[in-house]
This record gives sequence, structure tokens and C-alpha cells, in this order.
Amino acid sequence: MHAYRSHTCAQLNKDHVGQDVRLAGWVHRVRDHGGVLFIDLRDHYGVTQVLADSDSPAFAEIEKLRAEWVVSIDGVVKARDASLVNPKLATGEIEVYIKGVRVLGAVDGDLPLPVFGDQEYPEETRLTYRFLDLRREKLHNNMMLRSNVVRSIRNRMWDQGFNEFQTPIITASSPEGARDFLVPSRLHPGKFYALPQAPQQFKQLIMVAGFDRYFQIAPCFRDEDPRADRSPTDFYQLDIEMSFVEQEDVFGAVQPVIQGLFEEFRPDCKVPAEWPRIAYRDSMLWYGSDKPDLRNPIKMQVVSEHFRGSGFAVFAKLLENEGTEIRAIPAPTGGSRKFCDRMNAYAQKEGLPGMGYIFWREAEAGGGMEAAGPLAKNIGPERTEAIRQQLGLGLGDAAFFLGGKPEQFEGFAGRARNEIGRELGLAETDTFRFAWIVDFPMYEKTDDGKIDFSHNPFSMPQGGMEALMGDPLSVHAYQYDLACNGYELISGGIRNHKPEIMYKAFELAGYPNSEVDKRFGGMVKAFKYGAPPHGGCAMGIDRAVMLLADEMNIREVIMFPMNQRAEDLLMNAPSEPTNEQLRELRLRVVPKEA
Amino acid sequence: MHAYRSHTCAQLNKDHVGQDVRLAGWVHRVRDHGGVLFIDLRDHYGVTQVLADSDSPAFAEIEKLRAEWVVSIDGVVKARDASLVNPKLATGEIEVYIKGVRVLGAVDGDLPLPVFGDQEYPEETRLTYRFLDLRREKLHNNMMLRSNVVRSIRNRMWDQGFNEFQTPIITASSPEGARDFLVPSRLHPGKFYALPQAPQQFKQLIMVAGFDRYFQIAPCFRDEDPRADRSPTDFYQLDIEMSFVEQEDVFGAVQPVIQGLFEEFRPDCKVPAEWPRIAYRDSMLWYGSDKPDLRNPIKMQVVSEHFRGSGFAVFAKLLENEGTEIRAIPAPTGGSRKFCDRMNAYAQKEGLPGMGYIFWREAEAGGGMEAAGPLAKNIGPERTEAIRQQLGLGLGDAAFFLGGKPEQFEGFAGRARNEIGRELGLAETDTFRFAWIVDFPMYEKTDDGKIDFSHNPFSMPQGGMEALMGDPLSVHAYQYDLACNGYELISGGIRNHKPEIMYKAFELAGYPNSEVDKRFGGMVKAFKYGAPPHGGCAMGIDRAVMLLADEMNIREVIMFPMNQRAEDLLMNAPSEPTNEQLRELRLRVVPKEA
Repeated sequence: MHAYRSHTCAQLNKDHVGQDVRLAGWVHRVRDHGGVLFIDLRDHYGVTQVLADSDSPAFAEIEKLRAEWVVSIDGVVKARDASLVNPKLATGEIEVYIKGVRVLGAVDGDLPLPVFGDQEYPEETRLTYRFLDLRREKLHNNMMLRSNVVRSIRNRMWDQGFNEFQTPIITASSPEGARDFLVPSRLHPGKFYALPQAPQQFKQLIMVAGFDRYFQIAPCFRDEDPRADRSPTDFYQLDIEMSFVEQEDVFGAVQPVIQGLFEEFRPDCKVPAEWPRIAYRDSMLWYGSDKPDLRNPIKMQVVSEHFRGSGFAVFAKLLENEGTEIRAIPAPTGGSRKFCDRMNAYAQKEGLPGMGYIFWREAEAGGGMEAAGPLAKNIGPERTEAIRQQLGLGLGDAAFFLGGKPEQFEGFAGRARNEIGRELGLAETDTFRFAWIVDFPMYEKTDDGKIDFSHNPFSMPQGGMEALMGDPLSVHAYQYDLACNGYELISGGIRNHKPEIMYKAFELAGYPNSEVDKRFGGMVKAFKYGAPPHGGCAMGIDRAVMLLADEMNIREVIMFPMNQRAEDLLMNAPSEPTNEQLRELRLRVVPKEA
Repeated sequence: MHAYRSHTCAQLNKDHVGQDVRLAGWVHRVRDHGGVLFIDLRDHYGVTQVLADSDSPAFAEIEKLRAEWVVSIDGVVKARDASLVNPKLATGEIEVYIKGVRVLGAVDGDLPLPVFGDQEYPEETRLTYRFLDLRREKLHNNMMLRSNVVRSIRNRMWDQGFNEFQTPIITASSPEGARDFLVPSRLHPGKFYALPQAPQQFKQLIMVAGFDRYFQIAPCFRDEDPRADRSPTDFYQLDIEMSFVEQEDVFGAVQPVIQGLFEEFRPDCKVPAEWPRIAYRDSMLWYGSDKPDLRNPIKMQVVSEHFRGSGFAVFAKLLENEGTEIRAIPAPTGGSRKFCDRMNAYAQKEGLPGMGYIFWREAEAGGGMEAAGPLAKNIGPERTEAIRQQLGLGLGDAAFFLGGKPEQFEGFAGRARNEIGRELGLAETDTFRFAWIVDFPMYEKTDDGKIDFSHNPFSMPQGGMEALMGDPLSVHAYQYDLACNGYELISGGIRNHKPEIMYKAFELAGYPNSEVDKRFGGMVKAFKYGAPPHGGCAMGIDRAVMLLADEMNIREVIMFPMNQRAEDLLMNAPSEPTNEQLRELRLRVVPKEA
């Protein structure tokens, strides 16, 4: 017989009754039922109930066992009484009568964190004793889910004709918005490598090198300031690039992968196959966000004309300024003063003076419907009715109104839409609604009035060189995001593979050619030697697993996460280097200024 | 029709004759056959011959094309004349008559490196223009092989019941023999993270955390001094760990993966399924190496007794010293003075005074065999014959002899065995011969007479705590390597999961408990809370791909390798940091001493 086990803790059933077996695992729980000791023995695969009474030669040994000791037991499989069968347990038909036990790994002292049960523990404790936390059922399941998700993604990518290639990790600085992690070079003191924020340049080089469909579950590194929903150091992304493609080709390659993934791991949910393409501008107008939650049916509309020159002076006056608009948030079933006042209060809590509204109730006189709320009074019944008709609302519904320059209130409008949807229970449940957000603006005006890239500088401007000759702010990029339930799951673009257009695009953002050559020299050089049109995208693995696992905290889906101060409490990182290490790197730490 | 292509360059055949098609790719080669321009159009998938004559509306455009321009062509598929069919090409039955062409990516200036043809180029040029080098057939094939090998490994591991988990990359220093790459922390100035030399501690923690079978294609980082056959910065390994296992369980899980891999990717080679277990001591004796090439049938033997007190004074005297031995390298078919002298000269070239030999030839007197060579004369016919019989040699064979303390000549003996096998053509070809080398010594004596770990300090000593109470130099570890054709492909061990044995093992090597806690604190702490027996191994992916691709240079199997000075010539790494970066990290570069 094997030294430690003949079966796993999930294998035994009625067919094994009478057999001598050996099991190994952790003591999950010990129960003393009047001289009979019951142990739930747990391993990676499951739990088996093992027991000893005072007749067992191992009884004295068993009495000493405590939770989380690792043991190997020898015993004989017995059928449970029909009344004691546990149908929830794979091994619930049997139990194993212990004849011998061997301690393989004891616990020294008290457990700082129990494994059995699901009592909450402070995150510091959980991270310091991560190896115990990981034994708990939920985290164990999350890690298995993650492993299976990554496997499934890979298989689905291969099925789509992609090949996985590994790109360098110790490489050059590649400025892409976030901070690089630097790695000092010992062989070239004073010089530094950088860890890639993403394999962006490498995947584009792979296309220039003649490969057609690349993917990688790629480690990425960003020295970011702490935030709850992201890893402060390294994370993995599904990185994709394709040659000879347009935007729709990328969508066509990606959808089967993602759709299949969500269907596979969330069979309890609907994953509608229509993934609308929504222009960035429309997304901001309709949903107040470029990552809309489409489970919420509320779609905002421009209603400026109904307020222009109306009796509601605030909006009428506002509309006299250039670039202003009035937008309505329809709130089906929200037609009560109580609800409208609550939303108004929500707006005030968020720092706005308030949020005007109209709601439609049964006429007090009886018979028919009437519009209520301060706005309705100010603009009169005709305009009110026109608004109602435009928004397709009726009895028992409401609408909220926001005015000003859209970029100033769109963010709040999006949050208000979420809040209204949540309060009224309008959103679908058990559904993953995807949409491609397209036509992102190439440039934006910064606070100090300069023109800068609004997203990825490597994307091809729609219209190519010609488009760059006009107003930069009207240029759209071949740049797209995949939104899912209010999250940005994927981001990508068709790349700018023409050096002359790239130089021009950077020039508009204030970067001379020399700066482009300095920052992205390897890639730009490659584009001068026969580059194919190409494009791709990237998906955060953590984000995908969080959605699939229904977790809000990224640390619940990572095996050994850092805490929010970017410290590894288990391994004790970061730590002081030795003088020898600093000397080899020719570095000196500058003391903190007093 | 798609903007760039209706088919790939490997798809068209006789069935498409007459169809209008669109192809995209690189101009591989242009030939002008008297007013007809032939272009081999190449993409990731293959090559298609496209052509234009002066009747083609695209002729003038086609004339301008040069090698490696990226184009999309419109044309009609025509059958080739039977005499012009190229059976070596998937598309060799057809050609495409060009009606239109669009340049997608031109080449600016001369190519520093041609893609067509296989002329050798200096490695500096190849690395600087890696994107061109990668377009060449051999490198393209190597990268595809690597991608498919990694995929196959993963599938085979899953088939064996393993799960892939990702471990942290920005983490704590984990001293394992090589130098760490350090990463300065911006949030904790003066402190540093380290990149893992291997996920050794993490994979052991995963076992302690209750997972049963882990693997990872894991990035590893070692700041090593340049060497031809290894990457100076980062590399990937197949990392494996299993719980509740003994050595043979690991072998049983690994062999199907590796054997299947080699059978899949080298169907032209034999992969014998018997993988012998060879004790380290035997391997050193028989093959002069702990990674023997078993395709070579030569097996060395101890022949001390035949020389003790013999007339060959050098050996007889040598044997009077303690710890000395005489060993023979049998050389079947090497029985000529010419060959023996050449090997003797080889030994002298390697710095030895020479290598004694005996060879067996037809007796000059006629009838029968006689032993020749200086040694035979010195020790006389009886001893010579006894040696011949021990070694199982006969007419036309030879034997070489080395004497001294084994550890002083074993290395040379191994090289001489290789040389003899090569010279005599004894080794099998087209075969991958695997063997598990086991029973490595736990400790060795360093040059200054101290006891130190000879390999992995995390391995369990055979015999456990009891063994550590005796002579450290006689302790074997549960530590093993997989040798293949003269390379170490895999290394691993059954781990020491008992804190008290670990402290003791380190104590023998001169490390107090406090040092163990400081260096491996996370892991040792985990062992105190219920650790299962566990073990595993790791395989270098580069090495495996090199063997499968029959390449001797690691840079031929890595997409974007560093050069041997650890520089990325394409991306320009390492490079000077900005002052801003250094300030954020609170670091100063110390000027080189004058």
C-alpha cells in the first residue's frame, strides 16, 4: 500500500465497504460522541468521516489529534446506517473505522485562524497566515475557479487559432501611463531595466515579425498607488494581438472566447449573445459611463429643446451658454414624491444643488394621469407632456433632469442612473450583458488647455493621416473597450502601424519625433521595415475571475496577494537589502529629509 | 470581401481556380522572368506565388515592390501547368494573377538582414533587428515549436490531475544559490522587493495550503553572469509540486508528461520507456557525470585491484594513498595504437600527463589475440587478461585508465568517455535516453573544509532526523535529477516539511535557527501549522525546447532574448533612469571609483 494514502478523501463510497484503506489529510473537525471520536478528514478533493471508539488500537493516538494536524490513517470502510447517510458529501454513504494513525505534520501551538467554519477574520491575519486562509473552502474554491478559468481561456484562444508566446519580463521602460517598476542592473551599474506595464510593444513586434495571432496570459507590472480593486504590484492579463485585421475581426475572435467562458463558469446566468457596439459619445449620453451596466434598462436622453425658453429659468438660462445640454434620466416605476425626493437628496449628498424631477401620478381629480413636481409646474403641461412622450414614460413613472456642460455632469448622471436602477430594482439579475464601446476620441484637452492622448497613443486614428490634419478633438481612434455589467473587462485598439502617422499623432500631442524615437524606438524602427496592419486587446484576468466568482475584493482571487500597502506579510517583502547587494548594484539609499 | 485578405497564403489550391481572391503578406522574393513578375507572397501560414505581366493593371505598382514590403493583392487563381506544379508547397498547384495591389507597409531603406535565404549574420545584427530575424523560416519554426511544446506540456499536466496556479513575481528575496534581481520599492523607500529565482517557497506553501498537485509554467529570475547556454535574466520553468508523495510518485507523474512530449515533437526519434534509476555515486563512477548521456554505451568500472602491487609503479604507488582508485574506460572497437595515441593526446590537451591504455589486437605471431600498449607490458599478461575479462572486451577493443581520488578525475573521465564515444561512433543517434539520478549527497565539504549543502537545502534527508545525527557527508537526500542525452532536464526533491529536521539540517551546514527564520521565515512558519509530506521538481522550458529543436544556443528558442551582456539591443535595456525616477525611489547611483 502507498506510504500515505490508498484513496483521496473524496473517493470512497458503498463499493469500497469492507476494504482496508489508507487516507491522508487534515483533521478538519473532531467530535466526541460519548467515547466515539469522529473526525472529518479533509484533503484537496473532499472530506471523509473517519472514526475510532475505545476498541480501536489507535484510540489513544486519535485522542491527541487537534484541528489541522496532517495525518495518515489506516482503516476499514463501513457503510453508514441509512439514517446517517449524508447526501451532500461525495463520501456520505460510508465512514472509515480507524485501525492505525500516523501524524505527518502536527500543529505547533494555537491556530491564529481556524479553517473550519466561516467566521470573518481581519485581513492582516488572513494575509499573514495565508496558507491557513487558503485551506478554507471559499478561498480554495476561488483558486480552483481561477485555475480552471485560465485553462479554459487558453483552450478557447487556441481553438480560435492563436498561439501563445512569452515576452520578456526584464526589459526596457515602456511608458504607458503608469509608473514602471525598475530593476537595477549589476552588470551595467547605474543603468536599470524595467518590468513591463504590459507587453504592448512586444506583441506589436511579434506581428511585425510575421506571426499572425498572438496571445499570452501575461504578467504585467505597474507601480500604482494603493486601490481596493487592483493589485499594487503585478497582475496577469490575457493579451491578444492579430495581423491583417480591422476592429470587427478582433471582436469576432474575442466574443466566442469570452462568451464561452462566462457560459461555462456561470451556467446559472444568462449571457446574451448580442453584444451591441456603442459609440463612446452615445455611451456617455445614454449611461453616463464608458463602461455601462446594461442590465439596468435606463437610457438617458437629451431634452434640451423642451427647456429652451421655458418657464424654468435655471435651465432656460443655462442653455444660453455654448455647449450646454439638459438630459433626462427616465425612472420607470419611480413615480412617487417620496422616491423623487430621496433621489434629490442623493444628488445633494453627492454635492449637487439638487436634481429636478417630474413624475406622473393618477390625477387627484380622478380619471387620468397628471404630471407632478416643481419642474412640471414651471414649464407647463405642453412641454411636460412632450417630455413624457419623448421618454416613453407613463403613469407611475418619473424622470430626473440634469443640465450644464455634459462633461461636467455625465459622471454624476451615470451614478444617479445606477442608484435609480438599484432603488427601483430595475436591473436584470443573473445576467452578464456585454457591449463594445467604440469610437473613443483620440485626444482630449487637458486641464491646462493642452492637447493630449485621451487613451492609448498606439491606436490608429480613424481616417488616418488626413484626419490628423483637422481638429484633433474631433478625431476618433480605432480604440474599443468591452463593458460588462458596469466594468471595463477588455480594452484594445487597431494599432497605428505607419511611422509617419505615428509621428504626426504624437506631434499633435506635443511630442517631437526625437521623443517618439526615444520612448518607443524599438517599435517605431520595426514599423519602417514592413509592418502589417494589426490590432488587439487585453483583458484583466483578476477582473474576469472576480466577475465569475462574484467577489468584490481582488485579494479573494489571488493566491498570495500583497496587502494594500504593497507589502507581502507572509514572505516579508519589501525588505532591507544587504550592504553587499547595494554595493554590487552601486546604489545608495538617500536618507529621508528631516 | 475582407479589407486585407480572403484567404491566407497557405490556403489556395486547385479547388479555388477561377476565383477572385485577396491575399496579404510580405514580399518574400521577386523574380523578373522577361516581363513577367513573380512574387512569393509570404504570411504566417505559408507562401503563394502571385504574378503580374504587362497586361496587368497593377504591373506598374508591382514593379515598385521590394523584399519585405507588406501588401494586399487582388487577383484570380489560376492552375499552374503540370510541369510547374511545386509539390513542396501547399499552394504549389496554383498561382494568383494580380489585378490590383495595395501597399500596407513599405520598407524604408535597405534591409539590414534579408529574410529570404539562410545566410549567417552576426548575432548583434540579428538581435538588433530581431523582428526581421524572426521572419526567417528557422526562427519562425522554433517559436511555433516552443509555443506548441508549452501548450502540450500544459495539457499533459492537466491530464495528470495537476492545476496551474500563479505565484507572485514581485516578492521577497529567496536565497537559493544565485543572485536575486532586486526591485526598489517606491512606497517603502530604502526597501526592496526581489524577483523569484524560482517559486520554490510558494509552491511548498501551496501544498501546505491544502492543494494537492500544482504546476506552473513559471517565470524565474536569476542575476547570473553571462554563459552561452542560459538566459542572463529571466527564463521559464515547468514547476511541479505534489502532496502526500514519495520519490517514485513524482517520477510516475512526470514520466508520461515528458515521454509523451518527446514522442509528440520528435516522432523521428526513439524515446525508450525504461528510465533507469541511477544513484549519484554510480552515475559518477560509470559515466563521470551526474547528467550522463546514455546513448553512449561506455560504462566505466573500478579496476584498482588489478593494479595494486602491480608492475605499473605509478598506479601501484598511487593506490597506497587513501581514497584513491583506478578506473577503466572501456573503448569497444578502439583497438588501434593510432586511436589510443589520439586519446592520450586528447588527455594531454586537457591538462593531464596522459592516459594509460591497453588495446587488443591480432597477435603478430598470428593466431589469437594479444594485448598491446605500455600498461599491458608493465602489469603482465595475467592482470591484463583479468582486466579484459572484467571489462568484457575482446579483439579490436581498447581500455583507458585513470587513477587518483575519484572527485579529482571524474569530470575528465566523463569528458573522455564522451570523446571516445564520439570518435568511435558508439552512441545511438535519433534517441532520447532518460534516467533518474537519485540519492544525491545532502552535504559536501567546501574547499575550506566546511560542511555545506551540496544541492537543494529544502530536500528531506533520507533517514530523517536520525540520519542527521551521524556523519553529514554520508547522508543522502531525497533529491533527484532527470538526465537526458547529457543534459540535466529536471531537478527536484522530496521536501523537508518538518521544522525540527529543517533546523537541524541547516545547523549542520552552519546556519543557526535565527538565520533559517530570517531567510525562509514564511515557509518555516507554515510548516508549524500542519504541513503534508510533499515533493516536486522543475524543468527548464528553454532546455526542453533546445533538445526538441536540436539547437545549441538558447537564443534560438527565445522570442526576444538578451545578448550575452544582458542587454536588449532592440528595446535598449538597461538604460539610464530619469532623475525623477531615482528621486521617487530615494536612490542615488554611486560613481565608479577612479
